[in-house]
Amino acid sequence: MLIVKKFGGTSVANKERIFNVAKRCIEDYNKGNDVVVVLSAMGKYTDELIDMAKDINENPPKREMDMLFTIGEQMSVALMAMAMNKLGVPAISLNAFQVAMHSTSVYGNAKIKRIDCERIRHELQNRKIVIITGFQGVNKYDDYTTLGRGGSDTTAVALAAALHADACEIYTDVDGVYTADPRKVKNARKLDMVTYDEMLELATLGAGVLHNRSVELAKKYGVQLVVRSSLNTNEGTIVKEGAKMEKMLVSGVAADVDTARVAIIGLKDEPGVAFKLFNALAKNNINIDMILQSIGRQGTKDITFTCNIADADEAEKVISDTMEFQSIDVDKNVAKVSIVGAGMQTNAGVAAKMFEALYDENINIRMISTSEIRVSVLINQKNTERAMNAIHDKFALGEEK
Amino acid sequence: MLIVKKFGGTSVANKERIFNVAKRCIEDYNKGNDVVVVLSAMGKYTDELIDMAKDINENPPKREMDMLFTIGEQMSVALMAMAMNKLGVPAISLNAFQVAMHSTSVYGNAKIKRIDCERIRHELQNRKIVIITGFQGVNKYDDYTTLGRGGSDTTAVALAAALHADACEIYTDVDGVYTADPRKVKNARKLDMVTYDEMLELATLGAGVLHNRSVELAKKYGVQLVVRSSLNTNEGTIVKEGAKMEKMLVSGVAADVDTARVAIIGLKDEPGVAFKLFNALAKNNINIDMILQSIGRQGTKDITFTCNIADADEAEKVISDTMEFQSIDVDKNVAKVSIVGAGMQTNAGVAAKMFEALYDENINIRMISTSEIRVSVLINQKNTERAMNAIHDKFALGEEK
Repeated sequence: MLIVKKFGGTSVANKERIFNVAKRCIEDYNKGNDVVVVLSAMGKYTDELIDMAKDINENPPKREMDMLFTIGEQMSVALMAMAMNKLGVPAISLNAFQVAMHSTSVYGNAKIKRIDCERIRHELQNRKIVIITGFQGVNKYDDYTTLGRGGSDTTAVALAAALHADACEIYTDVDGVYTADPRKVKNARKLDMVTYDEMLELATLGAGVLHNRSVELAKKYGVQLVVRSSLNTNEGTIVKEGAKMEKMLVSGVAADVDTARVAIIGLKDEPGVAFKLFNALAKNNINIDMILQSIGRQGTKDITFTCNIADADEAEKVISDTMEFQSIDVDKNVAKVSIVGAGMQTNAGVAAKMFEALYDENINIRMISTSEIRVSVLINQKNTERAMNAIHDKFALGEEK
Repeated sequence: MLIVKKFGGTSVANKERIFNVAKRCIEDYNKGNDVVVVLSAMGKYTDELIDMAKDINENPPKREMDMLFTIGEQMSVALMAMAMNKLGVPAISLNAFQVAMHSTSVYGNAKIKRIDCERIRHELQNRKIVIITGFQGVNKYDDYTTLGRGGSDTTAVALAAALHADACEIYTDVDGVYTADPRKVKNARKLDMVTYDEMLELATLGAGVLHNRSVELAKKYGVQLVVRSSLNTNEGTIVKEGAKMEKMLVSGVAADVDTARVAIIGLKDEPGVAFKLFNALAKNNINIDMILQSIGRQGTKDITFTCNIADADEAEKVISDTMEFQSIDVDKNVAKVSIVGAGMQTNAGVAAKMFEALYDENINIRMISTSEIRVSVLINQKNTERAMNAIHDKFALGEEK
């Protein structure tokens, strides 16, 4: 069997944990499996590198930031190879140049385009454990890129797809995917299985276990994922197509507090306004989430949308430079709370039940958006945990089904 | 003009020094020059990486050590590019893969084979300062290598040769090449010029300013070097072919205390003994410096040699495993003191004058070795500074010629 195992920064944060990871990989290796390991930078090392850079230049060129960032994973993989060697197992570390991991050109947020498997297969044939730097790629200019948030998960899934791996295990500091964040909802329960689509919605909504890009990629190439803890041997959560639905309408509740609401009042009510607005935002790489359009007074219309909190100020600037309107309002004290579940596709009452839970708690809903397997509401951020618990209880997610 | 400037670890040890280096480079850039900068890892970072590795595996694979080491220079070059950018000058950092810097295969002690100049020239044409990782290469297996001691100097010289640079400036924490180590000989004087051969002898003898490999390379390709301080703007020392001799017999005095003397008593007096002995040592990568052979008692002979102190114990072991003899003695409390100068080639009295200086101080000479431009003696280590001062005074090296 060919197994791709990915370990995050907390899993390799110190010597003891590095050896812990090495031993888990060697267990699989000793059973005769081919083992490919993907690692993130140790602990908070990426944050240290950011501090180091900002101390020199508060607005460093992204190309050079990526050049700096990539040393974090290279440190992890080299030390891991030494640890495995110390335990008597041949291992070799490879960076994005050595693999080669071809990516798009965008620094800080590149996408993997193609992975050359020749070197990896060669090392596996020599019965080595192959340890690969997550999060990084090389673009057509022969420069390092990084893959943005959740990049190492994406690396692992892309490698599993390219190598036609039999398993792709994502190790993290939680046991798997829960019905809600256990730190916020006390009777949150671990799920045995979720579908890609459910995971995708949960990831997008800030459930924080897997990044959406890695899930999208897994879905596209049919890579079955297992999310589990590097700190214990508990069974994790399997993410796959058509996973058994557990007869549940709703699989989980998630909240995203890194969101901001931008309301534009008094836009001209004429064709092309929405196009012009969102085209300008897209050109500035600002991703939009929920959108709400309403008719304003005297032949005007209002458009409200949400975006990542980090992009809110730039969005305001772009709109002010591009559009004619009466006023604009940016609110960063909001949160998006969502329920996700493949079961809700066929049940009209799910959204109503969610709204009822919020009404019971006297929490005001400011925006609503839905997909086939998700309902999201925008509320004031201070109400986030109260809303999550109310919804979790209303759907009785803490109880085994 | 195309200028290659190399700065060592102390020159980029912190934010302030990084900006200091950035400004020096920008001065040259603003005069219209093309500027290529070679950097070492910051301060003692390479030592920190060694500690990190040894904590995991006291005998780490050399291939993985090089993978770990190379992050040190990558950190330096990325931060330097950010600093120059902050000062408003376009700069780009390149690692050994990006250059590409082709090396031989030996991990930890590779040699540069070939440098691709295309990328560097392209960036220079775009009027960027190009900042390149010193000390590292990529071998035919597509793995990182490091160049061993003085590796960043070698990188700079090799780049200057490959790019046909007009100048190659080696910045260090001393003002240039001195007639003797100023910490040991108080009226030591800075030299304006030395020849490659003199520098080569001084480097080999532990004068510590430039590593011999970089000087050999500079000589081979006729790259004129300037050695100067990154901490002040003093004129440095020029190293070039046929530099004006300053009418001096002797250019400088150097001492090497990292040397050990191995004496083998009672070897068989028959053909092939020396071959067998030194062949065995060579096969174990033990470099030999001075050699002395004398006839022993009753059809035996004695051989004494010096080697690096770090190799002395292994040398003893190799000899004990290989040869038949009566006794072996390893003395680590020795020092090699040498005088160097292209002028002495044509003057027979130089060696005698040196021996006289030692005799005046009542210092016993244990071994002697000479080259065309060097005379070395082995003495007890405790006499090192006294010997250096006596010789320095005897040749009046502190006085302008």
